[in-house]
Amino acid sequence: MKARRKLILLSMTFLLTILMNGATAYAQNAYDITHEESLKAMAAAKKHAEQSGVLVNIAVVDAGANLKAFVRMDGSFLGSIDVAIKKAKTSRYFDIDSGELGALTQPGGIIYNIEHSNGGLMTFPGGVPIKDKEGNIIGAIGVSGGTIEQDREIATAGAKAIID
Amino acid sequence: MKARRKLILLSMTFLLTILMNGATAYAQNAYDITHEESLKAMAAAKKHAEQSGVLVNIAVVDAGANLKAFVRMDGSFLGSIDVAIKKAKTSRYFDIDSGELGALTQPGGIIYNIEHSNGGLMTFPGGVPIKDKEGNIIGAIGVSGGTIEQDREIATAGAKAIID
Amino acid sequence: MKARRKLILLSMTFLLTILMNGATAYAQNAYDITHEESLKAMAAAKKHAEQSGVLVNIAVVDAGANLKAFVRMDGSFLGSIDVAIKKAKTSRYFDIDSGELGALTQPGGIIYNIEHSNGGLMTFPGGVPIKDKEGNIIGAIGVSGGTIEQDREIATAGAKAIID
Amino acid sequence: MKARRKLILLSMTFLLTILMNGATAYAQNAYDITHEESLKAMAAAKKHAEQSGVLVNIAVVDAGANLKAFVRMDGSFLGSIDVAIKKAKTSRYFDIDSGELGALTQPGGIIYNIEHSNGGLMTFPGGVPIKDKEGNIIGAIGVSGGTIEQDREIATAGAKAIID
Repeated sequence: MKARRKLILLSMTFLLTILMNGATAYAQNAYDITHEESLKAMAAAKKHAEQSGVLVNIAVVDAGANLKAFVRMDGSFLGSIDVAIKKAKTSRYFDIDSGELGALTQPGGIIYNIEHSNGGLMTFPGGVPIKDKEGNIIGAIGVSGGTIEQDREIATAGAKAIID
Repeated sequence: MKARRKLILLSMTFLLTILMNGATAYAQNAYDITHEESLKAMAAAKKHAEQSGVLVNIAVVDAGANLKAFVRMDGSFLGSIDVAIKKAKTSRYFDIDSGELGALTQPGGIIYNIEHSNGGLMTFPGGVPIKDKEGNIIGAIGVSGGTIEQDREIATAGAKAIID
Repeated sequence: MKARRKLILLSMTFLLTILMNGATAYAQNAYDITHEESLKAMAAAKKHAEQSGVLVNIAVVDAGANLKAFVRMDGSFLGSIDVAIKKAKTSRYFDIDSGELGALTQPGGIIYNIEHSNGGLMTFPGGVPIKDKEGNIIGAIGVSGGTIEQDREIATAGAKAIID
Repeated sequence: MKARRKLILLSMTFLLTILMNGATAYAQNAYDITHEESLKAMAAAKKHAEQSGVLVNIAVVDAGANLKAFVRMDGSFLGSIDVAIKKAKTSRYFDIDSGELGALTQPGGIIYNIEHSNGGLMTFPGGVPIKDKEGNIIGAIGVSGGTIEQDREIATAGAKAIID
């Protein structure tokens, strides 16, 4: 029984080794946005919105898809609080421009109804991943309040500020 | 390291200064409905419903999208309690006739799936913003129980009573 | 029956007239915080936290108890995102220092179990109302991450910045 | 087989007869509040609140514990919207003065933690059943915004208006 036990332990070690071999060399959130960067992205997005004369809500989430920074411009839609946060989360949940999910989630689309997961996904433009200079995704930014084109543009301006 | 910390703090101050610039001169809820006005709108909507022989639920929310007044007419649908409240909230969330959201949220629409935000949006007629005489949005009214045309007409009658 | 119906309508009009009498002259959200003020309060709270060496989440809500601004300092608790937001909301929901609710909601307290309302209340220090120079409540600030004494102190520093 | 079928039907009739014998002679909501009565109770409660100089939220639910009427007085707590509605529901859920639940739900109490049912119960004063002149419970009224004594007094004044 002692030999059998040893075998089981070896087998276990082997399994864990396999499991670990497949793993990347970093943890989920090894590359993560700082609050300084979040505020920088938020400030850049807000500046872009003001120059465009658009009133928006801006949310930044970190690598763990948790809220890092938020601001609601005076006069912007109350309903956009939740939409902006959900756009940012959606973008980080799947490391994608939220608008790109739109095509896939239409009736007949390959992931139709995925919007019912995660407490509700936003599948139209305005949520974009935030990357560092090496291209690692470190968070995401969500914007809501303007047209979908404006929201995407403003979010992109925010994300870009981290690299510049 | 002390110097670096100081630099970061300065940088942060700078960022927040940028964020604060460009603020509009008015706040979100500067113009708000009173309970007297809410009851007036509700009474007008109810009167219109009675004259049309329609049984409805009527909800009024304030500038902050919080419930201000509500009444359910005898014999109206139980399910319309939540629909009426959500119609009013939807209308204030996006300062829009709830029915106008319908076209935009169809499959293929530009904001398809936005209905999954804010705990559920109603995207068909029956929710309209309430404005004061100067045109400021001070709340919204939601009606449910009749056809969508009736609901919208009754809600509109309620909102109009504030201006007359 | 037509006469009876008319009587009911008259009676209803009378009731609603009674309901409308006695209304105060001001609305709930007449005094509201701007996003500039929200960021100012957030910046002051953050500065105070940094000087105290405490890592916190800071949330500001407006007069309608809706999120206006938020920041999570690096290394602060993930669980404090929701706590900070709920502290700010609790404070505005009842125009009170959230810590003062604690004594009232203990077992045997006069409003024991009120914490089960409004999607969950936080009844310990860290949420304080924000007032303007005239003393009108225009929003609230919630802080979470330090000890309850630290959280309250940081939140108070944030609220105070609006008046100074 | 025809005989067997007849037997089954007879047996079924017998079972249903037994089931029905135990039933009271009326359905759950046979005695139900009208919207006219709801507004009357609300108006009486509001008048009492105004005479006492207390700002409250008032909610009336019907025999099915569903919202029938609601008003929020200007300047009353935003958090009291949900508390008033939950007090009314709690009162009808168990046909009891909500304050009486308080003693039973303390730690060690016989129904400790029942407040976690039904989306949250309020177990302090301010919710009272509404009865018709024959003593049948036809709904309930919930009041929130004042002290618990004031809330109970105002709710009682509202309920009483239906009998007077």
